[in-house]
Order: sequence, then C-alpha cells, then structure tokens
Amino acid sequence: MGRLRAILGYPNRVPSPAHGEHDVPDGTAVIAAPIVSPDDAPRLSAAEHARTLVAAGRTASLATLADDGAPWASLVAYGALDDGRPVVFVSRLAEHARNLERDPRASLVVTEAPSGDDALAAGRVTLAGVAERPDGALAGTALERYLAAVPTARVYAEFRDFSLWVLRVERVRWVGGYGRMASAGGGAYAAAAPDVVGPAAPGAIAHLNADHADALLAMARTLGGHPDATTAACHAIDRLGLDLFVSTPRGSAFTRLAFARPVTDPGGLRAATVELARRARG
Amino acid sequence: MGRLRAILGYPNRVPSPAHGEHDVPDGTAVIAAPIVSPDDAPRLSAAEHARTLVAAGRTASLATLADDGAPWASLVAYGALDDGRPVVFVSRLAEHARNLERDPRASLVVTEAPSGDDALAAGRVTLAGVAERPDGALAGTALERYLAAVPTARVYAEFRDFSLWVLRVERVRWVGGYGRMASAGGGAYAAAAPDVVGPAAPGAIAHLNADHADALLAMARTLGGHPDATTAACHAIDRLGLDLFVSTPRGSAFTRLAFARPVTDPGGLRAATVELARRARG
Repeated sequence: MGRLRAILGYPNRVPSPAHGEHDVPDGTAVIAAPIVSPDDAPRLSAAEHARTLVAAGRTASLATLADDGAPWASLVAYGALDDGRPVVFVSRLAEHARNLERDPRASLVVTEAPSGDDALAAGRVTLAGVAERPDGALAGTALERYLAAVPTARVYAEFRDFSLWVLRVERVRWVGGYGRMASAGGGAYAAAAPDVVGPAAPGAIAHLNADHADALLAMARTLGGHPDATTAACHAIDRLGLDLFVSTPRGSAFTRLAFARPVTDPGGLRAATVELARRARG
Repeated sequence: MGRLRAILGYPNRVPSPAHGEHDVPDGTAVIAAPIVSPDDAPRLSAAEHARTLVAAGRTASLATLADDGAPWASLVAYGALDDGRPVVFVSRLAEHARNLERDPRASLVVTEAPSGDDALAAGRVTLAGVAERPDGALAGTALERYLAAVPTARVYAEFRDFSLWVLRVERVRWVGGYGRMASAGGGAYAAAAPDVVGPAAPGAIAHLNADHADALLAMARTLGGHPDATTAACHAIDRLGLDLFVSTPRGSAFTRLAFARPVTDPGGLRAATVELARRARG
C-alpha cells in the first residue's frame, strides 16, 4: 500500500502537481508530505527530458491518419538528427507510409524501458508535427542516422518502395511517470540537448539500489525532507540530481535531491553522487 | 551478413511474400531458398496472432485525434475483455482522453518484447476502431479487467477525472516481424482465441536455443528443407509448430515446422517438440 499511496506525484516542487489537479473524492490521502521541506532542487526541462528519451530509444509508435481521417497506430524504428528530429524509413507496402503520403501530419511516442512492474511509471514523450521528405544533403544525413540506429535496414536501403521521412516537431508532451509531466514547443525541443548522463543513468540507478541503499536512506533522511524514512530507492538520475522513492511510517513519497553542481560528463556522475552521500551523512 | 540476407521474409509458404512485393533493384538476392521443399506447415491466423499479442501485453500506444484532426500518439496501459476488446482508463487531464471525448475513433498498437537486438523483428498488432464508454455490467467487467492488468490503478479508480473506454475493433493488422503480415476484420478478431501456448512460448524458445541446438539443427536439415544448414535457432513457437532461423553456406532463411498435431494446453508443448526432434532424427 505504501507504493500505491505515493504513485500519484512528487509532493515537493512537482512541476505540474498532478494530485492537486485530479478530481479526487474528499478524504482521499495518497502522499506522505515531507516533514522537513527540502531546498528547491532543480530539474531537467521538459524539452531536455524529451531529447534524452528520443536519444535513448530506437523504436517508437507512430500515429498517422488513415484515408478516412481516422487515427492509425504502428511500430517504427527511428534515428534522430542533431536537432532531435526523428527519421523514419518506411515501405509503401505498409499503411503508415501510404498515410504519410496522403496527409503528412504525424505523431510519435517514445517510451523508456520500464524499470519495475508498473508500466505507467515509465517516462515517455509524444512528439507531434509534420513529416517531411528530406532533400539533398539532409536526405543523406537522415539515412545515415537511420542506419546508425537500425543497421539491419542497410539491406533494404535501396528498395524503391521505401522512403525516408523527417518529423518537423511542433509540439512536445513529456510524461515522466505518475504526476510528472510538462509540455514544450518545437523550438525549445530543437534547442535542448539530451542529458549528458542519460546513457549512464540505468546502470547508475541499478548500482545505487543494489550496493548503496544505506547512502540513499541517509540522503532521504537528512537532505530529502523525510527524517523518518525507513527505505529509499533511486528512481531516476540526471545531470542535475536524483529522485528517490522513500517509504516512511506516514506513507511513501518521491523526493528530489540536487547535486552540488551539474554533472558535465558521464564520468562525473560517480563523484557527484559520492559528494551527495557525504553531505547526507554530515 | 547471413542474417541481413534473410530478414526480409520466410521463403517457404510465407502468407504474404514480402520480398516478392518489395520494389527491389535487379540483382538483389536476399534469401536462401530451401533446397528441399518442406511440406506445407500450418500457421496461426492473423486474428489468432493478434489475440495472442493483445493477451500477452499490458501496455500499448494509443493513436487519437487532436482538436485539429491531427494524430496524437501516447502510452496507455490496457486490460482486455473476453472477446479481445481492449479497455483503457484515462484521465481528462491527459490529451488522449480529451481527444476521445471529441472524436472516439482510435487505434492501438501492441508490440511484443523484442527478443534480439533488431526491434523490427518483433511481432506487433494494430487495432483500429471506435472507443466506447461501457455501461452497466460491462462497465464493471471492463474496470475489473483493467485493474487485473494494472493493479496500481486501484488507488485512482475513484478519481472522477478518469474514465473507462472499450475499443470496438473494426480493423486488425498483424506484423510478425520482417515479411510476415496479414490483416483481419473485427469479427474474426473477436471470434479468435489467444494461442494457448502463448504465455509459455518465450520460455520454450529460450530453452530450445540454450539446450537443444542440435535437435533444432536436425529439424532444419531433415524437415525444414535446408539439408546443408549449419546452425538453426528457434525464432517463434505456437500451438501449431515452430519457426526456425537457419544459416546455410547459401545464406540464411526462416523455415516453418508443424507439430504432428496442434498443442491444446501449455503442458503439451514439450511433448510436441520432443516428437518433432525424434522425427527429425529419423
């Protein structure tokens, strides 16, 4: 029940306080509020989260429009240009390619691999915009990026029924799991960079949870606003800090801790976490 | 290269021979044809494959229509009714729910977990139709099925911004990986049953490949039409038979082998495979 009571949001400084917006019957209490209010901890922007998820993934679901204007969902593999625009390579034998030729409006959702058994706790991002056929040098770059992500496509790269499409991103909606979500425009998405520690994050989270539960618990108690925490697990980590899932006798909660300074390369993640643990132990 | 040359289709008895339909430049040879033509091996129907994938999954990507009629892709969890209709439970705080209220046309794509590093080799199914708000007893059953698939939703089942939707399935498109694909209507989808050995398939495939490579090779050589096979791996298994990925000096290929009779319960899978191996060894 502890987990159930906390899944709906980060009680402290959540960018979009989901629990507050849900239409909840009176008397429903789901989250343990922090006893000591921790300092404001900076977070990645929605655009940065989106770029990080797109950089980490290789498959997405594509939404296109069927001939009667109805939506059509399908699986695609994708590569990405430097500004985060996704590249897909699809055969006219498949309905989604014929749909794009008829109406190029499209949307992609990229989902991170779920770390636990609750699939809706996984981060995901929806990109919506217009698919465009790249010309000239852009076509070469787009194909190269697609083949880097999907090497097996090399064998059919010459097939004439396949065509490249680049999604011009107009709208971005990021959902970081329960209660963490935010939107961004195409300009912010293109201008943002994937989190530099993104590729190292899954390994770091697994390592912290397997070998450093005591340090995480100390962080939750002294820096995370939950002095009565009984367990703490790392839920997410990025260049600015980490998110802990904390259990207390009052219920469970997420809390966010900032690194002393942003991590600027993946190799710096370890030192930043060690510093946080040292600070937590006073 | 062996794998690359074979990914485009099953050379023997492929329901929709992808290689033949692709617009391939002259001189491109990608698949090793069988030397000895094996007997026709029965396959699951597209509707059965679709029902099996939907029964195995818990998350899907949903395509809906934004207010300007553009497509919008998002992640959902789902349960399923006995006739395979998916049930989703979404908050009006999320764009997909507002989209369904405005225009209930919707499509879901369910993707199986990729077993190798080629994501496009994974099976997937697109369902398209109209989302409906269930009434009366159906609403109770629908919620029950959703909560069975997504137990954590119990905590917000009472939130008034959430609503249940059941997808009335009108069109089904199944893609079994490269070169294996077929369509079905809503009636065939509802009438089909999930493959009875579906839940046991991933474990059986892993076991065969880890411990019985010699038996698989014998099957490929004597029953699969590739007497010069050098390696064979189980790619898929279902109640009617199994699919092997075969390497030969001529290139690589998929081949299909039928069980002596359809397997009628998961416990029968082992005996059917043992019988096939015995037959392969003469």
